[in-house]
Amino acid sequence: MRKIGRREVELIALGASLLGSGGGGDPYIGKLIALGTMGEDTQVDLIDPMEVPDDAFVVPVAMMGAPTIMMEKGIGSIEFSSLIKTMESFFGKKIFAVMPAEAGGCNSLIPLAAAAQCGLPMVDCDGMGRAFPELQMVTFTIGGISATPMCLADEKGNSCIFRTISNKWAEEIARSVTMSCGGSVLVSLFPMEGWQMKQWSVKNIVTRSMQIGKAIENVKKTVDGTPEEAFLKESEGILLFRGKISDLLRETNGKFNTGRVILDGIAEFKGQKASVVLQNENLMAEVNGTIVATTPDLICMVDTETFRPITTENLKYGKRVLLLGYQCYEAWRSPGGLELVGPRYFGIDTDYVPVEERVKGARHV
Amino acid sequence: MRKIGRREVELIALGASLLGSGGGGDPYIGKLIALGTMGEDTQVDLIDPMEVPDDAFVVPVAMMGAPTIMMEKGIGSIEFSSLIKTMESFFGKKIFAVMPAEAGGCNSLIPLAAAAQCGLPMVDCDGMGRAFPELQMVTFTIGGISATPMCLADEKGNSCIFRTISNKWAEEIARSVTMSCGGSVLVSLFPMEGWQMKQWSVKNIVTRSMQIGKAIENVKKTVDGTPEEAFLKESEGILLFRGKISDLLRETNGKFNTGRVILDGIAEFKGQKASVVLQNENLMAEVNGTIVATTPDLICMVDTETFRPITTENLKYGKRVLLLGYQCYEAWRSPGGLELVGPRYFGIDTDYVPVEERVKGARHV
Repeated sequence: MRKIGRREVELIALGASLLGSGGGGDPYIGKLIALGTMGEDTQVDLIDPMEVPDDAFVVPVAMMGAPTIMMEKGIGSIEFSSLIKTMESFFGKKIFAVMPAEAGGCNSLIPLAAAAQCGLPMVDCDGMGRAFPELQMVTFTIGGISATPMCLADEKGNSCIFRTISNKWAEEIARSVTMSCGGSVLVSLFPMEGWQMKQWSVKNIVTRSMQIGKAIENVKKTVDGTPEEAFLKESEGILLFRGKISDLLRETNGKFNTGRVILDGIAEFKGQKASVVLQNENLMAEVNGTIVATTPDLICMVDTETFRPITTENLKYGKRVLLLGYQCYEAWRSPGGLELVGPRYFGIDTDYVPVEERVKGARHV
Repeated sequence: MRKIGRREVELIALGASLLGSGGGGDPYIGKLIALGTMGEDTQVDLIDPMEVPDDAFVVPVAMMGAPTIMMEKGIGSIEFSSLIKTMESFFGKKIFAVMPAEAGGCNSLIPLAAAAQCGLPMVDCDGMGRAFPELQMVTFTIGGISATPMCLADEKGNSCIFRTISNKWAEEIARSVTMSCGGSVLVSLFPMEGWQMKQWSVKNIVTRSMQIGKAIENVKKTVDGTPEEAFLKESEGILLFRGKISDLLRETNGKFNTGRVILDGIAEFKGQKASVVLQNENLMAEVNGTIVATTPDLICMVDTETFRPITTENLKYGKRVLLLGYQCYEAWRSPGGLELVGPRYFGIDTDYVPVEERVKGARHV
C-alpha cells in the first residue's frame, strides 16, 4: 500500500495524458477535481490488487460525458458520496474500495476524488490500461462481468440505478441519461468482487502512470544518451514518425469528436508523410500510406522538446510531435478484446496487427 | 369493491377514448394488452379509494412513449412483474395495489394488465381525470408528491430506478431512457401511501369511464329525447360545435404530434367555422374566431351518428363530428394546476377560463 498525495496526483495526471492515447479528456481537469476534493492534507491509500480480499466489494468510479462540461458545471460537493451511498444501499453492503475504470485521460483521477471524499482506498488497477469512448469497452466485459447494476449521479441531485441485459445496453441508456442531465455525470459501474477484479483488471496501472509521469519530468536530467532515447526507453514507446502538424480536420457527430491529422516529416523523416485518424482517441496511424498502428494499441503524439503528450483537443497546426505507438494490454489482443475495441468496431476496415509487428513490416518496405 | 372482467374492459376502453381528449393513444391498444394479459377468466378487483388503508403502499403504473410502438414490440411476458418486483425490492415493502396515472387513452388499461399479471387489485382513481403528454402533469405534482423513486422496464429486460430533484427532471430523464429503449416502456412512478392517494387523486374515474362507455353503447336505445340529448346528458358534455372536417394539418416535432383541425359548420352551425389546436391532446377550440374551450378542460370530437370519440390519429377529412367540451377535474383549475397544464404551458397565449363560462360568453356575442 502507498499513499497518494498532491505530488502523486501531478504524476498520475501526466502519465494519464499519455495513456489517454489522445483521448479520455485532459487529465488536467481530473487533477483539479482530485486536488479540490483532497484539500491540502488528505492522502488516499492506493492498494495493490493482490491485497484486496476475494470477497471484497469493489466499484469502479468514472465520469461519463464531456470533461469540459463537468468542469463548467462544477463538482465535488455531493456527487461522490451520493453515488457511493446509492450503491451501498442498493446492494445492502459496504464498498471496500473504489478503482478507476479508465486510467487514461480525465478518468484516471475521478476515482481518487471519490476515494478522498468518501474515505475509501483506491485499487491500483483499471479496466482499459488506456482510454476508450464507450463504457462496455473494458476488460471486464471480456470477462463476462456485467456493467450493471450501474449508478449514475449528477451535480443537481438526480440519480439512477440501471440493470441491463448487456453492457452495450448499459452504454446506450447511460449515454442518453448523461445527455439529458446536461452532458456530464458521475457513474459507478461494473460492481464486482475482489476475485473478479484480480482476474480481469489491468493491474498496477496507476503505478505505471506515475512512472510515465516521472519519465516525462526527468527527461531534462538525462545523463545516458539523448532525452528522447531515455523517454522512449522509460515509457516503452515505439517511435512511428517525427513530424510537424500540417493539416487538421475536426468533426463532431454529436456523440464523438472525429478527425484526421496530417504530419509532414522532419529530421530523419523529411519528405515523408504520416496521418492519424481519431475518434476521441487516436485510432489509426499511417506512414507514407502504410498502416503502422491501430486500436487497441496506443497511438500518442508528444511534443518533440518537452515530451508532454498532446490530447486531440490540443492539436495545433505547426506543432512538432513524435508519433508513438505503445503495446496495449494483452487481453485486448484476444478475439473477445478485438471484437470490443479492434479497428473494425470503429469502422476501420483492416485486421488488427500488433504495433510491434506493423512497424517491422513497414520498415522492410 | 367490484370485479373487472372482459366486459368492463370494453366499457373502460370506450370511456377512456372520450377522457383522452383526443390524445393518450388509442385505448384499443390498451384493451388488447389488458385482455391478452387477463386471458379468458381472470378478473381484477377494482377497489374504492376510500377502502385503501392510509399506510398502504400504492403505485401508479403506465406506459411511457408511443402506444403504437408498444403494440409492435409486444408486451405482457415479463415487464409488469419485473416492474412490480423492482419497486418492491427497492422499497423493501409489498405493493398493496396498483392504480392508473392517466384514465384517458391507452394508459387507462395498462395498470389493469399489471394488476392481472401480478394478482394485485387496482384502485378506482387516477392522477389526471383525462390524458396529458408529460409525466409531471398529474394532480400528485400539485400535492407535492415526488414522481420518484420511479421505475422503468422495457420488454427486453432492461430496467432503471430514478430519484430526481423534481418531477420535471423525472420527465426529462425518463423520456430519454424511453427513447433509447426503443420508444416505449412501462413505468411505475409517484409511489405513495393510501392517505396521499385519497387526498390528491381523481377519485372513481374508472367507474366514470365505464359510465361513459355505457352511455355511448346505449345511445341507440334512447327513449326520451334524441340520442344526442341523451348522450350529452349522460356524459355531461357541452356542445361547442357541429361540423365536417374540412382541413387537417399535422406535424411531428420529434416529441409530440401537433396540428390544427378546421371544421365547417353543419345543421344549426351552417356557414360557421371552428378550429381545434392539438398537441397529442386537443388543447384549444375556437368557434368563429372566439375561444370556446382550452386545456385543462377536455375538448373532444365524437362521431355525429355513433358518438364514438375520435382520437387525433383517427381524424379524417370529411368526417362529421360533434365538438364537445367537458369540465376538467377541479384541482386543475387551481393556480398550481394551471401552472402545470394551463394554456400558457403549451404556448397558447390566453388565460384559462372554464369552458362553461367561455361558452356562455361566446353565445352572447
